[in-house]
Amino acid sequence: MTRQRNIRLTVAFDGTGYHGWQIQKGLPTIQGILTEALEHVACHKVTLIGSGRTDAGTHARGLIANFRTTARIAPRDLRRALNGLLPEDIRVLAARRAPAEFHARYSAHSKIYQYQIYRGEVLPPHLAREHYHYPFPIDVGAMTRAATLLVGSHDFRSFARSVHGGWAPERSTVRSVLRADLRAEGRRLLLTIEADGFLHHMARNIAGTLLELGRGRIGFEQFGQLFEKRDRRAAGFTAPARGLVLVRVRY
Amino acid sequence: MTRQRNIRLTVAFDGTGYHGWQIQKGLPTIQGILTEALEHVACHKVTLIGSGRTDAGTHARGLIANFRTTARIAPRDLRRALNGLLPEDIRVLAARRAPAEFHARYSAHSKIYQYQIYRGEVLPPHLAREHYHYPFPIDVGAMTRAATLLVGSHDFRSFARSVHGGWAPERSTVRSVLRADLRAEGRRLLLTIEADGFLHHMARNIAGTLLELGRGRIGFEQFGQLFEKRDRRAAGFTAPARGLVLVRVRY
Repeated sequence: MTRQRNIRLTVAFDGTGYHGWQIQKGLPTIQGILTEALEHVACHKVTLIGSGRTDAGTHARGLIANFRTTARIAPRDLRRALNGLLPEDIRVLAARRAPAEFHARYSAHSKIYQYQIYRGEVLPPHLAREHYHYPFPIDVGAMTRAATLLVGSHDFRSFARSVHGGWAPERSTVRSVLRADLRAEGRRLLLTIEADGFLHHMARNIAGTLLELGRGRIGFEQFGQLFEKRDRRAAGFTAPARGLVLVRVRY
Repeated sequence: MTRQRNIRLTVAFDGTGYHGWQIQKGLPTIQGILTEALEHVACHKVTLIGSGRTDAGTHARGLIANFRTTARIAPRDLRRALNGLLPEDIRVLAARRAPAEFHARYSAHSKIYQYQIYRGEVLPPHLAREHYHYPFPIDVGAMTRAATLLVGSHDFRSFARSVHGGWAPERSTVRSVLRADLRAEGRRLLLTIEADGFLHHMARNIAGTLLELGRGRIGFEQFGQLFEKRDRRAAGFTAPARGLVLVRVRY
């Protein structure tokens, strides 16, 4: 039997036209299209492991994936071959051999997401694909202070998508946020969150809740109590997927 | 007879899906789509004057246009109405009344174009629409020095698109470049040119010629002699439209 190599890929994509990362029958997804390209190059069936799911319409600058192959192609040539097959809005930025035990999902130490907001009255076309347009008066100072409350180990159940009104009680909703900050760049407002894991919709719900706090609809104290509340209805709206970018995965 | 108002518009667009600014029968163009939206709002035929043509696939952050109307709509409401009708890749950033004599083309003092190059090995999807991918080794220092030679009044015939191998001799090909500089931002290379006017393909031919100089195919001295040569064949290639952005028009 031929020995298998474990290959690690760094993937970037403009998620506008895709139904997220995970393969879904009959729908264009990043995992689906990338798996197809990999099988074409490797000439065998491939199981592609991603660092995690992304929502439909969400983007990535550096999603990490890995797969095992018996093909003897050099990682550099593999990258070139894949980019030759992939559409321009999905790119393999890097390909390299990884240790046999490397697992894109389980080996991940943390992920960094950025949520991008545009505050100006009219959203310029070159920012339209990756920014959420929010042209309302907001208190950025209050939002910046509230963001710091996210850092640490907390129960993020209030920020998690509630499936059928609840969350399987046996699954922990505690996550550790290593970094959470907001910075303004002209009329852009960029929220960066690094955590050891993200619950479903967590980054988007945090963005939506901070925006509602910025508009004065949620108080600072109320925001701080959301961890104890463990109730999705107590937090703010789910900000649209188009503003969310998976920036990096750390191992 | 109702008195006409002169309205000035600031227009931004992602030119990827368009055949440039100028109206062309049966083809999607910015002027065509914007005129249609204006006529819908104004309820009369409109002649829309642009600050100048742009090539198919070229982008704009602040193209200026003007038109005369008898409609009594406030500029702010006009902007909102237009953006409601226009596709998301064309936006009216500003609308305001202008003096009766204001003419978007003839009143222009200068235009600023930016040519955007991406030097990394793989072009990230979020830069793909507005950058030219040039992953070859280039001498940026030499290009930067050569760019300074462009400043001043010169005959840019070598950099102008030659129609049927020539240029109508009665039309001047002398233009004044007020600014020309190159700056690196990570793997992006940004060429900014401000001039009192641009010949057809001039910005793209300058970008292509500087890139060939950067690769050592055109010498520094040779570059300096291009103004005297007045021969399109002496300069470099026409860099692709997708990397070109009309940044601003000054009046």
